[in-house]
Amino acid sequence: MRADVLNELAKQPTPWLQASSSGEHIAVSSRVRLARNLAGCPFPNRADEVSREAVLNVVLEQLTKSTAFHPEFVVTMDALSAADRDVLLERHLVSRELCSCGKGSGLAVCGNESPSVMINEEDHLRLQAMCAGFDVRQAWQQASRLDAALSECLDFAFDSGLGFLTACPTNVGTGLRASVMLHLPALTILGMTTPIANASLRLGMTVRGILGEGTEAIGSLFQLSNQSTLGESEEEIIDRLESIIRRIVVEEQNARMRLARRERARLYDFVGRSYGILRHAYSLSSKEALDNLSGLQLGVEMGLISVISVDEIRDLMLAVQPGHMQLRLGQELAPEERDRVRAGMVRDRLC
Amino acid sequence: MRADVLNELAKQPTPWLQASSSGEHIAVSSRVRLARNLAGCPFPNRADEVSREAVLNVVLEQLTKSTAFHPEFVVTMDALSAADRDVLLERHLVSRELCSCGKGSGLAVCGNESPSVMINEEDHLRLQAMCAGFDVRQAWQQASRLDAALSECLDFAFDSGLGFLTACPTNVGTGLRASVMLHLPALTILGMTTPIANASLRLGMTVRGILGEGTEAIGSLFQLSNQSTLGESEEEIIDRLESIIRRIVVEEQNARMRLARRERARLYDFVGRSYGILRHAYSLSSKEALDNLSGLQLGVEMGLISVISVDEIRDLMLAVQPGHMQLRLGQELAPEERDRVRAGMVRDRLC
Repeated sequence: MRADVLNELAKQPTPWLQASSSGEHIAVSSRVRLARNLAGCPFPNRADEVSREAVLNVVLEQLTKSTAFHPEFVVTMDALSAADRDVLLERHLVSRELCSCGKGSGLAVCGNESPSVMINEEDHLRLQAMCAGFDVRQAWQQASRLDAALSECLDFAFDSGLGFLTACPTNVGTGLRASVMLHLPALTILGMTTPIANASLRLGMTVRGILGEGTEAIGSLFQLSNQSTLGESEEEIIDRLESIIRRIVVEEQNARMRLARRERARLYDFVGRSYGILRHAYSLSSKEALDNLSGLQLGVEMGLISVISVDEIRDLMLAVQPGHMQLRLGQELAPEERDRVRAGMVRDRLC
Repeated sequence: MRADVLNELAKQPTPWLQASSSGEHIAVSSRVRLARNLAGCPFPNRADEVSREAVLNVVLEQLTKSTAFHPEFVVTMDALSAADRDVLLERHLVSRELCSCGKGSGLAVCGNESPSVMINEEDHLRLQAMCAGFDVRQAWQQASRLDAALSECLDFAFDSGLGFLTACPTNVGTGLRASVMLHLPALTILGMTTPIANASLRLGMTVRGILGEGTEAIGSLFQLSNQSTLGESEEEIIDRLESIIRRIVVEEQNARMRLARRERARLYDFVGRSYGILRHAYSLSSKEALDNLSGLQLGVEMGLISVISVDEIRDLMLAVQPGHMQLRLGQELAPEERDRVRAGMVRDRLC
């Protein structure tokens, strides 16, 4: 892996975080990942380094040969600095778990950052596809095509009764996790995200923050994904997720309408404070920046503010995260200095 | 008391909260109060209503006759609405304790709001004089002149060994409480107000928030006053207070210099956020408004912001308090509505 590949990457917007269409952008992005393992090889958590290296090499070789996959870049985790890992994490190309892996783990990424394959994370392969907006089906098709192509040359562990076998029983079956990232600022203002998260849970969905498993919601961004992978077809899982997402999007639209019609002061206060802090602060933590950019985006989408576009806000959301900031600046920064530089970047864009 | 007197009052700046000179205004105002009681009458907390009314009438009669006191207005506490009491409290003309008194208690105020006399608060008389800036001596002279004039016509309870007798033993002796209100935003930013308050305590001073006894510091405003009234002459008490105040003013100046030279980002962040919130919020509590106006004032005094003068900030500090707001608007407002109106007043001044 050449360092300049990641440098270039960090300068570009992520394709899945694009707000190409106008209007609201409540469903930010859609993602599908498939867990696959090679038959006859121990799962990564049971494998020694030799075995893990062997799997990594086999998978990378087949990926490079495959006509269905044209890797933009391939990295092994042991070759990455902390800032590099942060960049990949912030772009959702790797999980926290893969970040903590060393020798024998890697990542292969297609042009335009989707699909991609994590190798020797929890499973031997995690195929992943991401799209901007609400388009789980397109992500599913991308992932599925890659899965079909790879199954031609790799022998995936499969049981006719259970389906695909995985390191963790929660992924056995389809090995499919479909998720949508939602931007729910109005529901957040009205304190309605917890009941909605609980209702989604009862419908078999998991709700997480922007940085995946075990993270809190920052910037009013929530990831919804299916909990179970067994007993339902891929189509059924995606249908169910889509129908729940559609309902939550309507809830957010209703919440925005309620704010606009009946609680204008509360809406103006939320948007105004977000803008005021971003425009005038000289030190901003990552969380505070994302939270206030979320408020600003609500203002833009509701026609209250026009100093910046949603696309520019989305760019900032990525650019102000620690990995992206440090890679762009070409140096590591102490957290306090990072907060100052971050505030400067944001102010510059709002001047 | 005519209602329009208080209405007029609420529209004017308080004389003691004026920033007439340029530069820093660390010592905001100076105040002296003298506790006096009529010989042979029970203290207010021991007196029945008849006795309290008798004292009130005697005192008001003598005040009206006196050539040393030209009352601008005289009010009895039972005639005041809650908003009226708030206005007087916010202008420091009455104490919280007098506000909770009814029939038999009152207030007489000279032109320009100083000196004034609270009647049947904790003591029969509390003479009070206030000046803008750091001028305890002038306040003392004003209070002292009134004291001398009144002692010609009223028989004050006095013991040749103890001095003036008061309802609470902590006021026996001189009955003098001299205080200075300090604006200490830089020491607040640097977290140095608690050690300074503790040091002042060891030097026999009491430190309180802006609204007197038992209140927390709001808007980085602190009131310093002498603890003891016994065993020292009035001159000694004032000398000691003045010398401590002078040292704290230097500490605040040093803190501002340290921020300007070594912690510019912290200073800019504090001032910028204050401005950003005041300029863009649509709902502001009284405390949040005062805290941020304090940050804004620091910015103006340090030459970072010039959209508003210190005098205008001081006007706002008074105008945004609940009593003043409601009296000006001529109606009672629910707290939530008050917060909205307050934010609007502040935004209008910063546009």
